[in-house]
Amino acid sequence: MAISNIRYGEGVTKEIGMDLQNLGARRVCLMTDKNLSKLPPVNAVLNSLAKYGINFQIYDNVRVEPTDQSFLDAIQFAKKGEFDAYVAVGGGSVIDTCKAANLYAASPSAEFLDYVNAPIGKGKPVTVPLKPLIAVPTTSGTGSETTGVAIFDFKELKVKTGIASRAIKPTLGIIDPLHTLSMPERIVANSGFDVLCHALESYTALPYHQRRPCPSNPIERPAYQGSNPISDVWALHALRIVAKYLKRAIRNPEDREARANMHLASAFAGIGFGNAGVHLCHGMSYPISGLVKTYKPKDYNVDHSLVPHGLSVVLTSPAVFAFTAQMHPERHLEAAEILGADIRTARIKDAGLILADTLRKFLFDLNVDDGLAAIGYSKADIPALVKGTLPQ
Amino acid sequence: MAISNIRYGEGVTKEIGMDLQNLGARRVCLMTDKNLSKLPPVNAVLNSLAKYGINFQIYDNVRVEPTDQSFLDAIQFAKKGEFDAYVAVGGGSVIDTCKAANLYAASPSAEFLDYVNAPIGKGKPVTVPLKPLIAVPTTSGTGSETTGVAIFDFKELKVKTGIASRAIKPTLGIIDPLHTLSMPERIVANSGFDVLCHALESYTALPYHQRRPCPSNPIERPAYQGSNPISDVWALHALRIVAKYLKRAIRNPEDREARANMHLASAFAGIGFGNAGVHLCHGMSYPISGLVKTYKPKDYNVDHSLVPHGLSVVLTSPAVFAFTAQMHPERHLEAAEILGADIRTARIKDAGLILADTLRKFLFDLNVDDGLAAIGYSKADIPALVKGTLPQ
Repeated sequence: MAISNIRYGEGVTKEIGMDLQNLGARRVCLMTDKNLSKLPPVNAVLNSLAKYGINFQIYDNVRVEPTDQSFLDAIQFAKKGEFDAYVAVGGGSVIDTCKAANLYAASPSAEFLDYVNAPIGKGKPVTVPLKPLIAVPTTSGTGSETTGVAIFDFKELKVKTGIASRAIKPTLGIIDPLHTLSMPERIVANSGFDVLCHALESYTALPYHQRRPCPSNPIERPAYQGSNPISDVWALHALRIVAKYLKRAIRNPEDREARANMHLASAFAGIGFGNAGVHLCHGMSYPISGLVKTYKPKDYNVDHSLVPHGLSVVLTSPAVFAFTAQMHPERHLEAAEILGADIRTARIKDAGLILADTLRKFLFDLNVDDGLAAIGYSKADIPALVKGTLPQ
Repeated sequence: MAISNIRYGEGVTKEIGMDLQNLGARRVCLMTDKNLSKLPPVNAVLNSLAKYGINFQIYDNVRVEPTDQSFLDAIQFAKKGEFDAYVAVGGGSVIDTCKAANLYAASPSAEFLDYVNAPIGKGKPVTVPLKPLIAVPTTSGTGSETTGVAIFDFKELKVKTGIASRAIKPTLGIIDPLHTLSMPERIVANSGFDVLCHALESYTALPYHQRRPCPSNPIERPAYQGSNPISDVWALHALRIVAKYLKRAIRNPEDREARANMHLASAFAGIGFGNAGVHLCHGMSYPISGLVKTYKPKDYNVDHSLVPHGLSVVLTSPAVFAFTAQMHPERHLEAAEILGADIRTARIKDAGLILADTLRKFLFDLNVDDGLAAIGYSKADIPALVKGTLPQ
């Protein structure tokens, strides 16, 4: 398995100008979104670029929960700019958009669907060399700074899908906990739920040696290869941090220890699921966010309806793990214990129910919307949600 | 921090021919030692090279516990061969020798001391591009497949020293537990002690944010950067595996689960210390092995006196951690607990003694030679041992 390089520490963002100098970058593309473009994380990057005399252009038109259209807009910007390095400052939406821009600018003759995951796209392997991309996450959820995945809403089909290739993984992730101090409460919560599900799903994913088919040539094996002894280390470690710190990080923006630990947990869980993969919570989340009607979440300053990714993932998690426990009941019990359940007298056959109950309690304490109804879905939507889940 | 790519699984060595094809390799240097050249791990590699039509030359003259002379011999072979890829099949001695050969063949005008660590060498940064190196470890100790370090005996000064640069880190480590099944008992034990000390030393190393000086440019920061939240994960995980499996792996060569886990632990601890660094056990081990007189260990088929690296490291460990506990007593207690101590009523000020006692018991159970006297040293050797330790 392959693991990204990361640098961690309060204030390490100020070194980014030196990193770009060391890379010999002469024309840098700085990607972010409209909200962030006026906030401290982008300022920290701009100051460092100025200090080290780095020539750059800003693209701040990234859409939160990007679409094929918003990807294409960023790609066009990247193609025109002929950049030799990229910097993405933001959450998963920004980092994923920047990965796509880097990829398609490096393969000018590729059609958009060429690299999109099959069956929606053609899932072609990436064989062109990409430019260096430095990712500076400002949320603590996606782990996108450590993965080779870029997710977007495919508007025509009303589904989320993505591009997955080791080639688009950032060259360096800068994990600077200072950027988490300005995150509003619900963004901390929803991005933390994403970390929770990355950890739980990658730990309970089909083990790598049970996946079929296994391509005989290592170069053809997917980035998502099933749970394995290394992704397990990251998943469990991230889950322990979530259990210990998520509540504190949500409730108190001044709790630097909690927010710093969640920022690391996001990267750790990213390394885990970036190699193992995720399963049902994420699979079902894509139609849940793709089919959104009028829901507008608190703390998100956007002009369109939106189910935040972490929320769309976590809503189904109690039901998902009640169901998946039959495959690996020991791992489900172990996860429940980490999240606070007393399993001393638990029966292995109850593992799924125990983890589901533990999750419900954990989420209830964190004021999660109460199920799909709370975000605007009714029974009549079930067929469409199922239809949207099946391609995943 | 930077982490190597590794592939894990029984039999994955047979894919190495494909990896070399994928790399476009046309002239491969296969390095190993005389013993291994007739054993199953090398055979598995040779079969794969033949199957995929890979053109190669063998160098099987690696010295166990290499010296500057043995490095130079391998370097000369590499320079002549004009190879475009390297494969190292063996323990740390083979992998380290191969790293040095790759480095100096890529910098033909460099003097040997240019890249050797200061103060013995000049410690110059590596700026030339190296060829891909695939490492196939056959012992479970060094973790060399995941690190940017190559260690050797500098004969003239009778000390061990090395070369440390991210640039010499292998491109891929192939962690194939099949290769551990033929390891004799004492090799399992001594290499396991190396894992134990890598984990303990990197977990108790000076924290990265307390190290001085901190070079302002990230490119000048050393590979060994002090303990940090990521190396901690690897160190603790490796320590738990050692506590659970080392005894079983030593005693029963048929215990595949134990030997496979120790093979992974070696890589995990390597990722930990390869980023955090090691301290006194390793620092003191270099004169202990460098000044060896007549000691010839059981199970090592060599024609020269030798203190196996893992043994030279572990002999001082109880004394070392009794001493270092004052810096981080909590971490020392935590390590003692993982190794089996009951710390419920322990006082924090006794952390060093508790870890030392726990280690003595752990090592006694594994039939470790009883101190420096058992490997041929007397009181009269102390000044020379101290002198050899100080440059470290």
